[in-house]
Amino acid sequence: MNKDIVAVVLAGGVGKRFWPIRTYKSMIPFLGKRLLEHNISRLANAGFHSICVIANLEDKEAVESIHIDNTKIDIVIQKQPLGMGDALLSAHNYINSHACLVVNAEDVVDDALYTKLIEEAHKGNAFIVGKKVQGYRDLGYLRFEKDKLIEVVEKPGKGNEPSDLVNLVFHFFPDISVFLKLLKDTVSDKDDIYERALSAYTQQVATNVIPYNGYWYPLKYPWHALDIMNYLLRTYVVNHRGTKVVIKENVILEGQVFIDDDVKIFENTKIVGPCYIGKGTIIGSNSIIRTSHIGDNCVTGFNTDITRSYIGDGCWFHSNYIGDSVLEGNVSMGSGTVLANLRLDEGEIYSVVKNEKLNTERMKLGAIIGKNVRIGVNASIMPGVKIGSNSSIGAGIILGRDIPDQSFCFGTSTLTITPNRFDIASLSRDELKKSL
Amino acid sequence: MNKDIVAVVLAGGVGKRFWPIRTYKSMIPFLGKRLLEHNISRLANAGFHSICVIANLEDKEAVESIHIDNTKIDIVIQKQPLGMGDALLSAHNYINSHACLVVNAEDVVDDALYTKLIEEAHKGNAFIVGKKVQGYRDLGYLRFEKDKLIEVVEKPGKGNEPSDLVNLVFHFFPDISVFLKLLKDTVSDKDDIYERALSAYTQQVATNVIPYNGYWYPLKYPWHALDIMNYLLRTYVVNHRGTKVVIKENVILEGQVFIDDDVKIFENTKIVGPCYIGKGTIIGSNSIIRTSHIGDNCVTGFNTDITRSYIGDGCWFHSNYIGDSVLEGNVSMGSGTVLANLRLDEGEIYSVVKNEKLNTERMKLGAIIGKNVRIGVNASIMPGVKIGSNSSIGAGIILGRDIPDQSFCFGTSTLTITPNRFDIASLSRDELKKSL
Amino acid sequence: MNKDIVAVVLAGGVGKRFWPIRTYKSMIPFLGKRLLEHNISRLANAGFHSICVIANLEDKEAVESIHIDNTKIDIVIQKQPLGMGDALLSAHNYINSHACLVVNAEDVVDDALYTKLIEEAHKGNAFIVGKKVQGYRDLGYLRFEKDKLIEVVEKPGKGNEPSDLVNLVFHFFPDISVFLKLLKDTVSDKDDIYERALSAYTQQVATNVIPYNGYWYPLKYPWHALDIMNYLLRTYVVNHRGTKVVIKENVILEGQVFIDDDVKIFENTKIVGPCYIGKGTIIGSNSIIRTSHIGDNCVTGFNTDITRSYIGDGCWFHSNYIGDSVLEGNVSMGSGTVLANLRLDEGEIYSVVKNEKLNTERMKLGAIIGKNVRIGVNASIMPGVKIGSNSSIGAGIILGRDIPDQSFCFGTSTLTITPNRFDIASLSRDELKKSL
Repeated sequence: MNKDIVAVVLAGGVGKRFWPIRTYKSMIPFLGKRLLEHNISRLANAGFHSICVIANLEDKEAVESIHIDNTKIDIVIQKQPLGMGDALLSAHNYINSHACLVVNAEDVVDDALYTKLIEEAHKGNAFIVGKKVQGYRDLGYLRFEKDKLIEVVEKPGKGNEPSDLVNLVFHFFPDISVFLKLLKDTVSDKDDIYERALSAYTQQVATNVIPYNGYWYPLKYPWHALDIMNYLLRTYVVNHRGTKVVIKENVILEGQVFIDDDVKIFENTKIVGPCYIGKGTIIGSNSIIRTSHIGDNCVTGFNTDITRSYIGDGCWFHSNYIGDSVLEGNVSMGSGTVLANLRLDEGEIYSVVKNEKLNTERMKLGAIIGKNVRIGVNASIMPGVKIGSNSSIGAGIILGRDIPDQSFCFGTSTLTITPNRFDIASLSRDELKKSL
Repeated sequence: MNKDIVAVVLAGGVGKRFWPIRTYKSMIPFLGKRLLEHNISRLANAGFHSICVIANLEDKEAVESIHIDNTKIDIVIQKQPLGMGDALLSAHNYINSHACLVVNAEDVVDDALYTKLIEEAHKGNAFIVGKKVQGYRDLGYLRFEKDKLIEVVEKPGKGNEPSDLVNLVFHFFPDISVFLKLLKDTVSDKDDIYERALSAYTQQVATNVIPYNGYWYPLKYPWHALDIMNYLLRTYVVNHRGTKVVIKENVILEGQVFIDDDVKIFENTKIVGPCYIGKGTIIGSNSIIRTSHIGDNCVTGFNTDITRSYIGDGCWFHSNYIGDSVLEGNVSMGSGTVLANLRLDEGEIYSVVKNEKLNTERMKLGAIIGKNVRIGVNASIMPGVKIGSNSSIGAGIILGRDIPDQSFCFGTSTLTITPNRFDIASLSRDELKKSL
Repeated sequence: MNKDIVAVVLAGGVGKRFWPIRTYKSMIPFLGKRLLEHNISRLANAGFHSICVIANLEDKEAVESIHIDNTKIDIVIQKQPLGMGDALLSAHNYINSHACLVVNAEDVVDDALYTKLIEEAHKGNAFIVGKKVQGYRDLGYLRFEKDKLIEVVEKPGKGNEPSDLVNLVFHFFPDISVFLKLLKDTVSDKDDIYERALSAYTQQVATNVIPYNGYWYPLKYPWHALDIMNYLLRTYVVNHRGTKVVIKENVILEGQVFIDDDVKIFENTKIVGPCYIGKGTIIGSNSIIRTSHIGDNCVTGFNTDITRSYIGDGCWFHSNYIGDSVLEGNVSMGSGTVLANLRLDEGEIYSVVKNEKLNTERMKLGAIIGKNVRIGVNASIMPGVKIGSNSSIGAGIILGRDIPDQSFCFGTSTLTITPNRFDIASLSRDELKKSL
């Protein structure tokens, strides 16, 4: 029976608001697996054994590498990022006439929701998931008429919310053909064909609303990766020691810490879980790592403090403070460089996205750094700053603005050089030595 | 009998030369008690059970909160800071016709002196305390005629010292009325009415000089708080562990360390006594604290070095070096910020007080920072710099001058941004990894 | 028999290309002995018991202090630095008519070569040592005619090498008189009299070539001291604990670590050998020292990382990173100062020597710092930078150029001071404290 229900996973599109992170949102690895794979596994665990992933061409190989027991995974490439409607239509041949649950590849929710969804899907009625929210959010709100869902109103504006339920993309169509036809017939000059078709669908087919009050976070801006990380760390990290792990003297491991194969942890270092340490990573001595995700083959060096941060593969640190930051991968920092994570006025941190200054709603946020970045020694990177991939940042600077991809940003301090008036050779340190 | 002798404690006035510290000198807390309370306790311990404190209105509540067994403490508010003479006259109703020992609230001396003073007071003769000094100091020098004290000469100038004894304000009057009358009759356009009246008194009443060669330090400039702290740490700190104290693995405690209630000390940290750690303070991991006073509810963070410093309540640090500094309270510093405490030429450190560049006579002196100050990451604060209260100091700057109260001081480094010429993605770290 | 063979050690001359290191190359101390003494000891161990050192006047005392059992050491002062030919001629009276092995004082080779050389010298035939090299080097190449050595060609230029063997200065003359005469007769306007005379000699006297494929490194530029150090550390350092050594709790010593008398090593510090720690040196807590040479009476302070570096006597550090650097002696650094040792593009590091930008052929190189230098806090010294002796470097600067001797180099950051708009006193840290 289950085989007839296809989970259609929307994993294509562009993530412009996710700059400087270039990895497509659902392709970001967490705990050794891409987010997409986490979500497919969870769908499969709940009972969805037929999965159709609609992905970008560049991610084809990554998606193909996903194998889950007793689960059929079809891959459809969406040729251009023309939205969710186009994505579904791309998969027409694979899904037509099937019962389909359409989900976003990057949405993270509680396992309980998946279990609920498979149960509901077996009942055979159309449904969508509605989440109660407090305060206005720029999402799609559900409109009801006499308890009947009749429309999803996109971003109605504060005060115009038709209900306190917002649309999560867990949409079940007992026969997707009906919805695909509506998609084909919908015309819009905005990127809302899917939503318009969905509203039309609800008017045509009685659509239940499954209420959900658990965890859900939109992975819209790159700092949202920290929320997803936090959820996954708290939910999935268990104490684990891989093979060939070396843990030196006086290493303190508190809470749940997953240590993958070939990891080395040097002396006098403390790791406060939940933490994930990827394969082959070396954690230097006299360091502290708290509530963070460290990818594969990193070298964190001596005396580094990594707190509540997502660190991708191949990053190298040395006596740094990295707080509440996202580093995509292959980022190196010289000794003494700090990713500051708190404003002097302790206010919420802003970040510029597509020329708009946005409130990240975070009191603590460090930097967001793309792939392949080098930062010199003693640099000070201000909260919320974003650094594009393939860029180099010089030593000693105060960086308070975003830096584009493939840039070389350096500072020079104004130096004055005069003859030295005093005779250093004659100074005695005997007095100083006494006070040691 | 003792009850008839009143110790009159002068705790009022202004401390302009104490900027940026706003807490009135004798109100600064040390080891959990204000300096005033330390001194009153010591007077009471020596046998002075009737105490009259003359204080500023704003400190009324603080003074009222002082309770000492078997000791009567009267409080007189000095309405305006018009000097010591005015202070005594303010207390006229409380002290008139009593035998009175007049002392400065902030003067710190050895316990032995207090014991000596109560003995002498019981003998019933007027006296003052004279301290032998070496080298000229800007103090009041005692002038004698045929071994009889006849005058206190204020700041006679180098070479004009009438003796090598200076006047400490431990002045005993068998009947204060005589002195109060002289105070009332003295007219001066300078702030020296008390001293003039004292000289007149010595000519009228035979006044002994009690010699004293122990510890005494004028709390005149804010860096003097370090000397007082040092004396109190060495004299009063004993090993103590309060209730609900948490001390993690591999914490090294050397010498006398007072740890108050609810303190947490994290791993791999060393505390070298004498040190005082106030209530609720969290000492981070991989840190070192030496010969310092840390107030209540501080968080010293990871990898911080605090050496010979006075830290008031509610300060937060993170990978800082704080050497020979005074922080009044609620001061926070970002990671990597350093309060430098040694000149490059290892000379004595100067500080500007009321537009005058003063030699602090200290080879090691860090910063003096008022209440409610925020400093960003990687800032370098030069020796002897003072920062006013309610001010913010930006990241990465070199601060070589004083900053007024309620200021926002920030730096911007000159950045040059060009296209990055090299392909970071292609760099291999295999060779570097071998050399780890 | 041995007594007739004199080892003539050339220890004179100038080391202009060695700036900012002023100590003459062979006089640099390694592992408690000057390089010259290391080499004389090794000659004596191999069987050369008659040694003639030709040195500069300023090093006379240092050479005279060298005493080796059963070995006669003569000292000849070379009055002016006029080259190797002049040096030998200066020693005419001491060495004439002897069998002589001429060696450079600073050349470091394997012990096996010394043993080979004494054997060959006893055979009585003239020889020089030829080392096979790969790729072109600016050295003297051996030219052969029908297997007979006939010339040493200085710096022939790439592609013009007459063989793949280069001349090492281990030259044996059965009767030095013959060579001295040739030296006297040679005229040149370049600094190549010795080499010209040597070529003439090979044409006159059949001269064997002793092949050598072991360790040899020219001590030409100051960063070469790191190569010599590395060889000596790996070859000679053994585990040793001197008298009155104090090693505190949780100190980790890995590999071979020589700890001389009166050394103190504080808590939570790791030393990874081979390392040499000189007399009276204090290694601070929470530090790491790897593959380095630390001279006498240094104080490395709290939280310092010294890696693959040569540290001369009397250096003081405090929370610094010192990587792949050479510090001649009496150098101090403030907290947070970093000697960066890797370019952002991970390319080979260049250094300017006598106005020429040279490729050091090192991917990792920090700074080269002369004697008596002070560096403030939080300074960033770029890879390959050289700082002259008796110079002071201010806090917080980015130093990307060489600094001459006796200079005072300081930076000032551009500060903007405005009224502080926000009320720091009203900020609450309760939320922040929860997340600790």
